[in-house]
Amino acid sequence: MGLIGSISIVGTGNVAFQLGKALIRSGNSIVDIYGRNHQEAAQLAKTLSCTFVNSLYDLKGDLVILCVSDRSIQEVSKRIPSNKIVVHTSGAINLDVLENHPLRGVLYPLQTLSKNKEVDFRSVPLLVESNDSHLLKEIEQLASTLSHRVVRVNSNERKQIHLAAVYVNNFVNHLIFLAKNRMEDQQLEWDLILPLLDETISKIKEIGPFEAQTGPAKRNDSHTIEEHLNLQEGKEKEIYQLLTESIKQTYQP
Amino acid sequence: MGLIGSISIVGTGNVAFQLGKALIRSGNSIVDIYGRNHQEAAQLAKTLSCTFVNSLYDLKGDLVILCVSDRSIQEVSKRIPSNKIVVHTSGAINLDVLENHPLRGVLYPLQTLSKNKEVDFRSVPLLVESNDSHLLKEIEQLASTLSHRVVRVNSNERKQIHLAAVYVNNFVNHLIFLAKNRMEDQQLEWDLILPLLDETISKIKEIGPFEAQTGPAKRNDSHTIEEHLNLQEGKEKEIYQLLTESIKQTYQP
Repeated sequence: MGLIGSISIVGTGNVAFQLGKALIRSGNSIVDIYGRNHQEAAQLAKTLSCTFVNSLYDLKGDLVILCVSDRSIQEVSKRIPSNKIVVHTSGAINLDVLENHPLRGVLYPLQTLSKNKEVDFRSVPLLVESNDSHLLKEIEQLASTLSHRVVRVNSNERKQIHLAAVYVNNFVNHLIFLAKNRMEDQQLEWDLILPLLDETISKIKEIGPFEAQTGPAKRNDSHTIEEHLNLQEGKEKEIYQLLTESIKQTYQP
Repeated sequence: MGLIGSISIVGTGNVAFQLGKALIRSGNSIVDIYGRNHQEAAQLAKTLSCTFVNSLYDLKGDLVILCVSDRSIQEVSKRIPSNKIVVHTSGAINLDVLENHPLRGVLYPLQTLSKNKEVDFRSVPLLVESNDSHLLKEIEQLASTLSHRVVRVNSNERKQIHLAAVYVNNFVNHLIFLAKNRMEDQQLEWDLILPLLDETISKIKEIGPFEAQTGPAKRNDSHTIEEHLNLQEGKEKEIYQLLTESIKQTYQP
C-alpha cells in the first residue's frame, strides 16, 4: 500500500493551474483545493473537477502539494496537520522549511508556467526530493506519470539550478526587452530581429554557447564598442559595459 | 541596362562563405574572389565555382561585395578602383567610409553566420542602403533574389539594429554560457534547462518580453535575491546585481 493515495492542492496560481491540469490529464485524481482567494479556488476546482475547501484543516488528500509563493510556503505548511505528506513546488526553498511534517518532499517543475500559455508537461523536467527514501520513490513515480524527465536533486543543487534558470529565463528575457525597446524607439520593426534570436538559440544547442560566441566584445573591437556605448545611457549602458567586460574576460583571460 | 552585371567577392570568412553560397543557389553568378589568404580564397573559389585573383586590382565584377572585418572595410575599399560599385556587409560601419566610390552601398545580413552551420538565407533579413537611388533599387532587387525580407535602412538605423543584435545574440549567448557553467560546475546535466530556454523564447514571441517577465527581481523578492547573490562572486555577481536592478527599475519605476 502506497503512501500517496489522494492528492490535495494548495494555491490557485500558475503552478497550481498547470500542475493540476497535468495531474488530471495523466490520470491522477485531485480530491480538493484550498486557496486564500476562495473565489479563485472555486474556479480552479471547477476546472479540475474537484471540490474546494475554505480551510487548510479540511483538506482530504494524503498528499498536499503546495503551489504557493516562496515566502508563504513555511507559514502555510505549519497550518496543515502534520500527519499529511506535504510537498512544495519551489526551486528556491529548502526542503527543511517543511520540518513540521515527518513526511515531506519537493516536486519542482523547471519551467516558466502561465495560466494563459499551454505547456506540454511531458517535457517539463521535474526535480524531486524527500527526507524519506520510500516517499521519494513514490513522488518519483507520481512525477513520472506527468513528465518523462524526472531527476533527484537535493536542496542545494536545486538552488543552483534555480539560479541558472534566472539567467536562462528572467535575464535573457530582460535583455530581449531592452533590444525590443531600442528597435521600437527607432520605429524599426521588431520582428526583423527574430530570425537572429532563433538562430542564436539553435546555435547554442548545436555547438554550445562557448563556441557560439561572436561580436565586438569577443573580438575586442574597441571602436565598435565605443560607438555602441555612445548610443546608450543609464542602466542599459552599464549592462553593455559589464557584459562586454565579462565576455572579454572569458575569451582573453 | 542595369548597373550590377557581374559580382566579385572580397573576403573568405563566414559572410563570404554563406552569402556566396546563397548567391549561387539563387541563380546569381560570381566571377571571382579575392582574399588576403590566397589559399582560403582558392578554396572558396572552388566551392563557388569561380576563379580567384591575387590582387584587388584584378577583380572583374561590376559589383564588389566586401565581406571583410569592420576594421578593414575602409582600407580595402581604397585599394579597389573607384569605377567599381562597392558594397559592404557590416552592421556597424557607415556607408560613407566607401566615399572613394561614387556608387556605393550596404547589404547587411541581420544574422549570425558560421561556415559550419547551414542557414536558410531566404529568411535572413537583408538591410540595404546606397548613396544612389538607382543603385539602391538594384541592390534591393539582388537582395530579394536571396531573401524574402529586404528592408531599406540608413546607416544610423543600421547601427541601432546592430546594437540591438548584440543584446539578442552576443549577450543572450553569454548569459546562457554563464548558466551552463554553473550547471556543469555542480555536475548537473545542462540539457535539463533547455526546455526552459525554448519556452522563454516561445513566450517572448507569443506575448512579448515585457509581459513575459517573471522571477525574483520582477516580484522584488529580496530573500531569494540575497540567497542567489551568496552563491555568486566576481563579474557574475555584478551581472546578477545589475540585471536585477534594471528589471526592478522597469517594473517599479
